[in-house]
Amino acid sequence: MSGAGEGPGPARRRPADSRTELAELVMPQHANILGKAFGGTILSLVDKAAACAAIRHAGRTCVTAQVDQVAFLAPIEIGELVRLVATVTWVGRSSMEVGVDVHAMDIRAGTQRLTNTCYVTMVALDEAGRPAPVPELSLETEEERARFAAGAERARARREMRRG
Amino acid sequence: MSGAGEGPGPARRRPADSRTELAELVMPQHANILGKAFGGTILSLVDKAAACAAIRHAGRTCVTAQVDQVAFLAPIEIGELVRLVATVTWVGRSSMEVGVDVHAMDIRAGTQRLTNTCYVTMVALDEAGRPAPVPELSLETEEERARFAAGAERARARREMRRG
Amino acid sequence: MSGAGEGPGPARRRPADSRTELAELVMPQHANILGKAFGGTILSLVDKAAACAAIRHAGRTCVTAQVDQVAFLAPIEIGELVRLVATVTWVGRSSMEVGVDVHAMDIRAGTQRLTNTCYVTMVALDEAGRPAPVPELSLETEEERARFAAGAERARARREMRRG
Amino acid sequence: MSGAGEGPGPARRRPADSRTELAELVMPQHANILGKAFGGTILSLVDKAAACAAIRHAGRTCVTAQVDQVAFLAPIEIGELVRLVATVTWVGRSSMEVGVDVHAMDIRAGTQRLTNTCYVTMVALDEAGRPAPVPELSLETEEERARFAAGAERARARREMRRG
Amino acid sequence: MSGAGEGPGPARRRPADSRTELAELVMPQHANILGKAFGGTILSLVDKAAACAAIRHAGRTCVTAQVDQVAFLAPIEIGELVRLVATVTWVGRSSMEVGVDVHAMDIRAGTQRLTNTCYVTMVALDEAGRPAPVPELSLETEEERARFAAGAERARARREMRRG
Amino acid sequence: MSGAGEGPGPARRRPADSRTELAELVMPQHANILGKAFGGTILSLVDKAAACAAIRHAGRTCVTAQVDQVAFLAPIEIGELVRLVATVTWVGRSSMEVGVDVHAMDIRAGTQRLTNTCYVTMVALDEAGRPAPVPELSLETEEERARFAAGAERARARREMRRG
Repeated sequence: MSGAGEGPGPARRRPADSRTELAELVMPQHANILGKAFGGTILSLVDKAAACAAIRHAGRTCVTAQVDQVAFLAPIEIGELVRLVATVTWVGRSSMEVGVDVHAMDIRAGTQRLTNTCYVTMVALDEAGRPAPVPELSLETEEERARFAAGAERARARREMRRG
Repeated sequence: MSGAGEGPGPARRRPADSRTELAELVMPQHANILGKAFGGTILSLVDKAAACAAIRHAGRTCVTAQVDQVAFLAPIEIGELVRLVATVTWVGRSSMEVGVDVHAMDIRAGTQRLTNTCYVTMVALDEAGRPAPVPELSLETEEERARFAAGAERARARREMRRG
Repeated sequence: MSGAGEGPGPARRRPADSRTELAELVMPQHANILGKAFGGTILSLVDKAAACAAIRHAGRTCVTAQVDQVAFLAPIEIGELVRLVATVTWVGRSSMEVGVDVHAMDIRAGTQRLTNTCYVTMVALDEAGRPAPVPELSLETEEERARFAAGAERARARREMRRG
Repeated sequence: MSGAGEGPGPARRRPADSRTELAELVMPQHANILGKAFGGTILSLVDKAAACAAIRHAGRTCVTAQVDQVAFLAPIEIGELVRLVATVTWVGRSSMEVGVDVHAMDIRAGTQRLTNTCYVTMVALDEAGRPAPVPELSLETEEERARFAAGAERARARREMRRG
Repeated sequence: MSGAGEGPGPARRRPADSRTELAELVMPQHANILGKAFGGTILSLVDKAAACAAIRHAGRTCVTAQVDQVAFLAPIEIGELVRLVATVTWVGRSSMEVGVDVHAMDIRAGTQRLTNTCYVTMVALDEAGRPAPVPELSLETEEERARFAAGAERARARREMRRG
Repeated sequence: MSGAGEGPGPARRRPADSRTELAELVMPQHANILGKAFGGTILSLVDKAAACAAIRHAGRTCVTAQVDQVAFLAPIEIGELVRLVATVTWVGRSSMEVGVDVHAMDIRAGTQRLTNTCYVTMVALDEAGRPAPVPELSLETEEERARFAAGAERARARREMRRG
């Protein structure tokens, strides 16, 4: 990253600047063979939400480099609302970690549950499709700093796993 | 409508209790033959968002009775984020008017524009599929009262149009 | 509109020249969470049918400017045939009103019902994407003239609504 | 087939009684990897149109037994209108042959071409899912009689092919 | 076809070189109105499998010229695995016949059945979209030679049918 | 697990018995906003392939418990063939680990590359939807034993991660 005016955006952005919500009503065409929300539908929404948050942070086209483990603790029903909240938690030079919370809401009852949290690594690209620098993360709260440190730790673990 | 305990929920709910956001990343499979977001995709999202808000208010299954006019002022591009904010604005005995604001966000630039506001009439159903009473709207702000009055006016106009 | 040879088509066209039928068998993937045809599916078909009629009249690319109110009087079942008949009812300089009749047919019983009629305003575009003139409507029957007058009235009402 | 009142419908029906039109605007989501209408999309429409005509004739649920050869003489473009006209041409005890004409229309130019004609064999089912008798075909014109004779010939050829 | 180096690939290829398997888990969104796999879904898979085999043989873009008769002997259930095995069986100058075996597997029971075999004629295209020569088929087993002879016979029958 | 005859299948199965291939031709409707295969499409295929392998091993309905990290090393193009090979690598009492290799094939060139390997944990369910015992894995080769040991190690790590 570099001085003002050189990149496509500011040198620093806060995690909140990238916060993106996606929300989808689960319809019969999202069903798996058991009549619940198909896992692939949820994974697709996670990927889309992460892409949105990364693009908002980077101000650039981004591609998915890795989706970390995604646990399916309890089935999501047809007719429920799936809400995904994605925020950039850590940034490297051109890669970003996006944390995605997946909530399922029983709309009729008005109750919502966190079904899982997962992490997606996205890479910003320039016009030629090469990795491009992204703004730094401007950390203001203790929680943001803790999340960033944990993200840096996960990034390290991913690099090692790839080598190993 | 009736006393506490008789219906499936409380006797009154605030507009904010029904507020529901849907958000969808516009993908190539949503394109029309000009390569922009297909109008039918947007109309589908409007219908789904309205249904969610109505179900949250009513605590019951709801069906669409009427979608009022929907203007398409400017095209929405592939890669933009469509955000729909739906809130119950007026209620009758078993019907509700839901106002849906449609926003399109250029994710890369971080800019968002209101592309239109539209109104959808939903009807709550009981288990037998007959119209069922819905909670009253608890109006607290001037704006909510003004929106309710305008909604009542639109409901009257719709009834007349149906007769005429 | 203008002299012969200047535009992409004739200076006048009859309503019947634009008449377009779309028909779709309602499949399980069109279902809403109640197992009936999803409203968004019907709205998408209305939009497509209107676009076809407008393009046939204009001989040009057209975009949807507004879908007027669409009432859902009775649910349409999975396995029914939805037939949409779209005809240009009124034309301005570059905008057209298309009337769309939506029929649902119980194929097994062979019975058909008109589920609603709605009006869609379409705008013709030239190659640069700017509004382009469309042929005039050549009105031959009393009914066509009455429909045109009613369409002009609705166009006036839409303009006022947009201003107000 | 049998006397009045025994079956779910009349003892005889004319070919015209089963005539069903399906029409679909070809959208980008129907494209193959060359950017033309995907063959599978056309084949799906043929199957749906044939099912509609058969159900109208039989007044019963029907299933596809065989789709005869389908030739793709010329590609259909995105933005064209595909129109399918299906009519029962021949009936056996519980099976029917449906002829399906596929037309592609360049909507802007207003020109339409027959892209192919194909034949689909459908079987009517009773509530238990067993083959059920269908009304006879009431043939009134020379053309209908000729089509019926040709259909009977094709039915014979299919039976032989299955044995062989 | 021509000398080595002139075309985009080798002068001869074995049938096994083009062998392609497609396999799809049948999901609720593939259902017809009876809750079984929709015929159009199977036909789409047949078309895709044939295209893959033809492209592998030709080393070029290919388009579907004709799908021969496809019989649906027994319904395929939601939750079953559809496996398609496609192999080039005969080649002309620029056209190829691809044999496609369709298998349905009851995954839970581990049993598989051949639901049908069908033949698709594909044509290879050069960059300008004109028919392009394809490699010859190098036949090594008796079965391959017999299949080729039968394919040549079917190609002759198709040409006659088109003329007639 | 238990004696012969008690469960719905044999007491032991080999990894090869569960081996399932899924293969899909990447079509324009699978594109992301960059015109490459959308990550969610690949994740959906991984989930489906894992489910098939688990159901074949267990002889029962299975649900996804966790998808481990999925790396997207290189984009997959429209028109390529995605092949997924899924095999049960480790089993617990009612849970199974399925290894899924994802291959992308440039059909025209006939070249194939392994784009990634990922692991999915599936749980077998009985008719009441409770976790049900699955057959043991009969390990015969050194490689199978090594894969099993590595799977057991990953299962331990997942349990710890869930606790932590």
